[in-house]
Amino acid sequence: MPAFPEIGKIPYEGPQSKNPLAFRHYNADEKVEGKAMRDHLRFSVVYWHTFRGTGSDPFGPGTAVRPWESGSDSVENAQNRARVAFEFIEKLGAPFYAFHDRDVAPEGKTLAESHKNLDAIVKVFKEEQQRTGIKLLWGTANLFSNPRFMHGAATSPNAEVFAYAAGQVKKAMEVTHELGGVGYTFWGGREGYQCIWNTDMKRELDHLAKFLHMAVDYAKQIGFKGQFYIEPKPKEPTKHQYDSDAAACLNFLREYGLKDHLKLNLETNHATLAGHTMQHELQVAGAAGALGSIDANTGDMLLGWDTDQFPTDIYLTTQCMYEVLKYGGFTTGGVNFDAKVRRESFEPIDLFYAHIGGMDAFAQGLKIAAAMRADGKLPGIIKDRYASWDSGLGAEIEGGKHSLASLEKLMLEKGEAAGNRSGRQEMIENLINTYL
Amino acid sequence: MPAFPEIGKIPYEGPQSKNPLAFRHYNADEKVEGKAMRDHLRFSVVYWHTFRGTGSDPFGPGTAVRPWESGSDSVENAQNRARVAFEFIEKLGAPFYAFHDRDVAPEGKTLAESHKNLDAIVKVFKEEQQRTGIKLLWGTANLFSNPRFMHGAATSPNAEVFAYAAGQVKKAMEVTHELGGVGYTFWGGREGYQCIWNTDMKRELDHLAKFLHMAVDYAKQIGFKGQFYIEPKPKEPTKHQYDSDAAACLNFLREYGLKDHLKLNLETNHATLAGHTMQHELQVAGAAGALGSIDANTGDMLLGWDTDQFPTDIYLTTQCMYEVLKYGGFTTGGVNFDAKVRRESFEPIDLFYAHIGGMDAFAQGLKIAAAMRADGKLPGIIKDRYASWDSGLGAEIEGGKHSLASLEKLMLEKGEAAGNRSGRQEMIENLINTYL
Amino acid sequence: MPAFPEIGKIPYEGPQSKNPLAFRHYNADEKVEGKAMRDHLRFSVVYWHTFRGTGSDPFGPGTAVRPWESGSDSVENAQNRARVAFEFIEKLGAPFYAFHDRDVAPEGKTLAESHKNLDAIVKVFKEEQQRTGIKLLWGTANLFSNPRFMHGAATSPNAEVFAYAAGQVKKAMEVTHELGGVGYTFWGGREGYQCIWNTDMKRELDHLAKFLHMAVDYAKQIGFKGQFYIEPKPKEPTKHQYDSDAAACLNFLREYGLKDHLKLNLETNHATLAGHTMQHELQVAGAAGALGSIDANTGDMLLGWDTDQFPTDIYLTTQCMYEVLKYGGFTTGGVNFDAKVRRESFEPIDLFYAHIGGMDAFAQGLKIAAAMRADGKLPGIIKDRYASWDSGLGAEIEGGKHSLASLEKLMLEKGEAAGNRSGRQEMIENLINTYL
Amino acid sequence: MPAFPEIGKIPYEGPQSKNPLAFRHYNADEKVEGKAMRDHLRFSVVYWHTFRGTGSDPFGPGTAVRPWESGSDSVENAQNRARVAFEFIEKLGAPFYAFHDRDVAPEGKTLAESHKNLDAIVKVFKEEQQRTGIKLLWGTANLFSNPRFMHGAATSPNAEVFAYAAGQVKKAMEVTHELGGVGYTFWGGREGYQCIWNTDMKRELDHLAKFLHMAVDYAKQIGFKGQFYIEPKPKEPTKHQYDSDAAACLNFLREYGLKDHLKLNLETNHATLAGHTMQHELQVAGAAGALGSIDANTGDMLLGWDTDQFPTDIYLTTQCMYEVLKYGGFTTGGVNFDAKVRRESFEPIDLFYAHIGGMDAFAQGLKIAAAMRADGKLPGIIKDRYASWDSGLGAEIEGGKHSLASLEKLMLEKGEAAGNRSGRQEMIENLINTYL
Repeated sequence: MPAFPEIGKIPYEGPQSKNPLAFRHYNADEKVEGKAMRDHLRFSVVYWHTFRGTGSDPFGPGTAVRPWESGSDSVENAQNRARVAFEFIEKLGAPFYAFHDRDVAPEGKTLAESHKNLDAIVKVFKEEQQRTGIKLLWGTANLFSNPRFMHGAATSPNAEVFAYAAGQVKKAMEVTHELGGVGYTFWGGREGYQCIWNTDMKRELDHLAKFLHMAVDYAKQIGFKGQFYIEPKPKEPTKHQYDSDAAACLNFLREYGLKDHLKLNLETNHATLAGHTMQHELQVAGAAGALGSIDANTGDMLLGWDTDQFPTDIYLTTQCMYEVLKYGGFTTGGVNFDAKVRRESFEPIDLFYAHIGGMDAFAQGLKIAAAMRADGKLPGIIKDRYASWDSGLGAEIEGGKHSLASLEKLMLEKGEAAGNRSGRQEMIENLINTYL
Repeated sequence: MPAFPEIGKIPYEGPQSKNPLAFRHYNADEKVEGKAMRDHLRFSVVYWHTFRGTGSDPFGPGTAVRPWESGSDSVENAQNRARVAFEFIEKLGAPFYAFHDRDVAPEGKTLAESHKNLDAIVKVFKEEQQRTGIKLLWGTANLFSNPRFMHGAATSPNAEVFAYAAGQVKKAMEVTHELGGVGYTFWGGREGYQCIWNTDMKRELDHLAKFLHMAVDYAKQIGFKGQFYIEPKPKEPTKHQYDSDAAACLNFLREYGLKDHLKLNLETNHATLAGHTMQHELQVAGAAGALGSIDANTGDMLLGWDTDQFPTDIYLTTQCMYEVLKYGGFTTGGVNFDAKVRRESFEPIDLFYAHIGGMDAFAQGLKIAAAMRADGKLPGIIKDRYASWDSGLGAEIEGGKHSLASLEKLMLEKGEAAGNRSGRQEMIENLINTYL
Repeated sequence: MPAFPEIGKIPYEGPQSKNPLAFRHYNADEKVEGKAMRDHLRFSVVYWHTFRGTGSDPFGPGTAVRPWESGSDSVENAQNRARVAFEFIEKLGAPFYAFHDRDVAPEGKTLAESHKNLDAIVKVFKEEQQRTGIKLLWGTANLFSNPRFMHGAATSPNAEVFAYAAGQVKKAMEVTHELGGVGYTFWGGREGYQCIWNTDMKRELDHLAKFLHMAVDYAKQIGFKGQFYIEPKPKEPTKHQYDSDAAACLNFLREYGLKDHLKLNLETNHATLAGHTMQHELQVAGAAGALGSIDANTGDMLLGWDTDQFPTDIYLTTQCMYEVLKYGGFTTGGVNFDAKVRRESFEPIDLFYAHIGGMDAFAQGLKIAAAMRADGKLPGIIKDRYASWDSGLGAEIEGGKHSLASLEKLMLEKGEAAGNRSGRQEMIENLINTYL
Repeated sequence: MPAFPEIGKIPYEGPQSKNPLAFRHYNADEKVEGKAMRDHLRFSVVYWHTFRGTGSDPFGPGTAVRPWESGSDSVENAQNRARVAFEFIEKLGAPFYAFHDRDVAPEGKTLAESHKNLDAIVKVFKEEQQRTGIKLLWGTANLFSNPRFMHGAATSPNAEVFAYAAGQVKKAMEVTHELGGVGYTFWGGREGYQCIWNTDMKRELDHLAKFLHMAVDYAKQIGFKGQFYIEPKPKEPTKHQYDSDAAACLNFLREYGLKDHLKLNLETNHATLAGHTMQHELQVAGAAGALGSIDANTGDMLLGWDTDQFPTDIYLTTQCMYEVLKYGGFTTGGVNFDAKVRRESFEPIDLFYAHIGGMDAFAQGLKIAAAMRADGKLPGIIKDRYASWDSGLGAEIEGGKHSLASLEKLMLEKGEAAGNRSGRQEMIENLINTYL
């Protein structure tokens, strides 16, 4: 018996459609820059919010109505839920999903029991992947919910917690490998501090690096070739998360010799909590050759916590896809909806409305970004803006032919620098509106 | 004729004094941890705010009453101002000062004229340094005020502007060297972007790195051995400053092979604009061996711009000095008051009140930090907290004797991690109050 | 000789146009909900940013190239500038403008001289209004730039400053009246505090109320029937501005018996600095019958100061015009572009790009809002959502037929409240995208 | 058997004590300004955080170890917990407590059952109040946790939810009355909106006002003479809470004729989330004659959510007590610790450390504030600053003897306003440090 008997596969009905259970822009097979939208966007549904989110918040328990849930924290209920999840993803038409170990299977009393519970669900996942063709974008381990991780996992002051986390990650990597996962993500969880006075930051970061090196080594050992990701977030749940933003992650990866092994999984709401735009973070990662995947959502710019709302702002999705196209498109990564329906959107149908809206907004953003690239106006403005570096003095400087002294000499002769031109920000902002 | 005839050298009168023109905590010769407070704190007065600040803001022109100013932008007025500055610093009892080239001398019509003007002031500085014993903590070049720098200096899309900036920095380094400056600072100015759409961030950062390498090379050439600093700031005047925070600076320095050549000059108000505490930034820099100097001020945590207020919060100054002591104290750096009196504090005497307050707060912070270190309670709490890493399992992990597999095996046997203890944040916060 | 000889009247070329010097959406004569767009939008150009803005910021002087400026602070230059302003507004096709007294005429050495200078410009304004048909949306007095206002104007601790401000406002009201201004605005300027410790907030607010009552009285006396506005802003230049947000303004107006005399002039960037959306502020004002006019701009949500950027976000302009239409449209007010070109957009042509972009974005927002109202989906969702209050129990409660006791009795019988439905936020966000 | 057998009554040991289970500043009987500290501070322990807080956060379940909890949601467990609570409060020496109905007793399946459960606990409270002399500062109803309140309570779009809330508040008022509560608080809970597009703000506020009027009427009916409070908070759990800040609350109370019936219960972390200092909110309330009580805690200024940390910053507690003393001290209100131990401070003893630290910090703040008032320096600075309003022109203006015209005449004669003096912010900030 399907969980959503009244819903069929979500159709594409074109831009004029007003049907809230249809796509207006996402046409999976449609080609954009010579590649199907499906392959550009690589949409992924997250298990944690979509199938384990309850709508609870710090001021009240869950509200979500989920008729397929038995109410028990049993393996059987978890297996049934897994089948519902694949029904949902299939009807939605998303080619990928992502999960944490503890989202999908109940935590046991011991690590061994937790491993066993996880295996029971992985079995269903394999069957459902086989049946539907849906793939695993990435897996990960939940190293933050259980009270044992209250002070962090790899950065816990308690060495046994590090060890436990190591065991949990080993298993999570194994099942990700078994399921053919194309990636594995490290989101910081509680790796950070609540109180700087009681914290030895340097020692904790040394431990985190050691942990990641162990993971890299183990991947080689078992032949897991999926991409590792590290995910920036500046705060929440801790006061300061070590993986604060793209630059902080890159600094850490460089310091500890890990840069070749991990790319960045960037999330919009994490970017804005760090005081950056998502577009900025994408450029920082892209410029460093470390743009891996994105967690697609949005925050509320007037709220200071991670609201994880579904992204529907076309400016945002255009910015995201413009940068993704600029850096060559996704290879292993994708558009992973790390987003949750509002506590007040408690009915199952809201899950469809939310994902359809997000997918459509990203599809529209992709089309707009491609149009911007196609007519070349904006790229032309930038090329023109830096023209002084493409020949003459600029090219000489870039070519290493100058020193402070040679440049001083030049400017003492000239007296003043010439050639500044308007940055044209307002014209560019208007230009972007012409593509919407 | 002195500019402040009614003010003598600011005396130390001890904690009970209520004299607003005396120190209650700053006793330059008093020993703390075996070193005179003077040498711990290395107070520095900034030329730009204290002698060039007018109180102007975006909503109105300057208000400051400065009777020694002739109103002319002449070299003569600048020379007279320089003597007033040294009178002030001497009466205050600060051992250092810091300046930008364009603060101290009028900008000429050409680079050559500007160089000449600067030389005329440097001559006075040398005389005054000789007369008073006051030293130059660091010099720097103003690469942001003149309209030519509207799009940045080293990161300008206009190569001639890069060249002009190079000529200006060469000269600023030369005069810093001539004046025996113990450091030279690069504050980002407008190195960043206002509009990400018109910006090639990667190319701009390549240029910035090239610029800094030229500076490093030139220092070697002229035998300048002062410490180079880079100063984090996340925004203002640009929407995004490339040197956003300590981590972003370190990432940049590592990427471009500059880490051995520059340390960080950290500023409280820049830290908080970036979403960090100053204590955090000090630890990040300290852990990376890159803690150079501090720009002492404070922001208003409810305002989103750089207010550059004088620091008087004892918690803040304690945090600063605790970290500075932890990382071995200042060597080349110092406590540089990059702070300005409020627009409404327009009388010359307010400059004294402000600096006395800041110096006293830092002296008190130093004494509290030393007391915290002396009785060992807080260091003991931290040592105890990480004890599991000092022997047994933790020591084995740190020693490289474990892998994911060996740790999993261990935890499969144990079943669960034991040994978590309260973080005791509230007790620590109370403990800190006992030192005030 | 025109200041912009190469620019003619900006044409309407329709949505497909790619001409950056044409409108794509703003067609002044086009009817929307039965009224010409011109009369819906009532666009107004601000004198201060557009004709007195220089691009200066706290880190550098102005950059703007304005060939019509003689460089002198003379009345003649001011008169010439006034004619350039009208040429610009006329070519743009905006029906209104707005000014502060000190923007348009140089401040004299005495109040009398300032009055005289102002009269000389008002003479030109009258001629130009006559010539072009352009009208004055509102006038106001600059009570914040001159150092005399450093501690506020009506809220200054110095009674003479209050008196001076009174004289200045009297004159500004007179010239506004003389020019047929349809409104007069009180923006708080420096009415607030920098330091709460030295401030008697209650006494200052008493003075502010007295000042406004004097203005109301004087308007009656001279027969000025224009609408008075008060403009919320939470901070900048002061740490706390008394007119913080719409609710704070309304509270003040109610407390001091001024609510019948002033409406609100709402500004987007002020709303967001206060932690509110512009849509929120519009609803608060509208619900209180106090929605007067808007200062159209946008801030950068990641920056903490008033950036006053031109608004180009279609979501924002749709929200604005949806609320304006909901509350009956503008009567005396309009869409006043309190926005400035970026410091890097220093060429005169950027003024056109910026205003065209803002006007087009608002015209598009108006059309989208009208479409949303026309098909009735969103209003229908709201009506449906509150249906329980339109009859039965809800209608009884609204009708005053219930008490805590009668309602308790009812619910003791029922046991639990029934009837909650999903808030459908995600569906609504998607629905809005269908109108873009 | 006591829950804390190893803890006796917390002693006062004086400022030199280093005992973390003793007071250094809070000496209940010590007189300050002629009144015992106990009566100044009126400390209150909150039931919700201290006895129902588990340490759960959005990223993980509770961590708190509470040996006295049976793990059952039974009335018996709730009764036992109530006795533990009184043991704790008694040992701490706090004279008051505060609670929500659903904190203290389990919610039943029906309103009737919930009433019955509540009565069973109230019975224990009465016994314990009798036994210990501890009093109820205020009671309130939890109108936000249960899913029925997902869209608000009095502002729900569902009229039945309004009715249910009415029944719940009636009962909560009755038990507060029965327990001799000296106040009753309305904290907004979910009265606000998540999505402005689906919200009829005006209608919701009308309902909220009606609800409060019903409560006022019912209080009269049952003879409850306790003070009603409304508690400002700008956001969280909703995107916008209607009771945003002190000014918004006062505006609402004035609009709906409720100002005589409710005072404000101000919370530090709510103030800062609204962009205000607590000192500001205290002055706004005080100036309006509406300063009722305070919820003592602190936020983290770099985090955007309600962290509800225990207050230990002496500057903050000094500001609070300075304002409280200025407005005449608490009458019905008190210092209510609406604060929770960190998730990592999971041991029962942390509850003591936390409360002792908060109480001591407030006691020290009280003593500092009294000292500041006693020597009169700061009050003198303010009096002096406004002297121009105490006679002459200022007194005439305050006395209603002037108009815009008479003041213009005066200033046309004078030409310019004279008499501005420095605001002396830096000197004042230093002065405050002399009291610490």
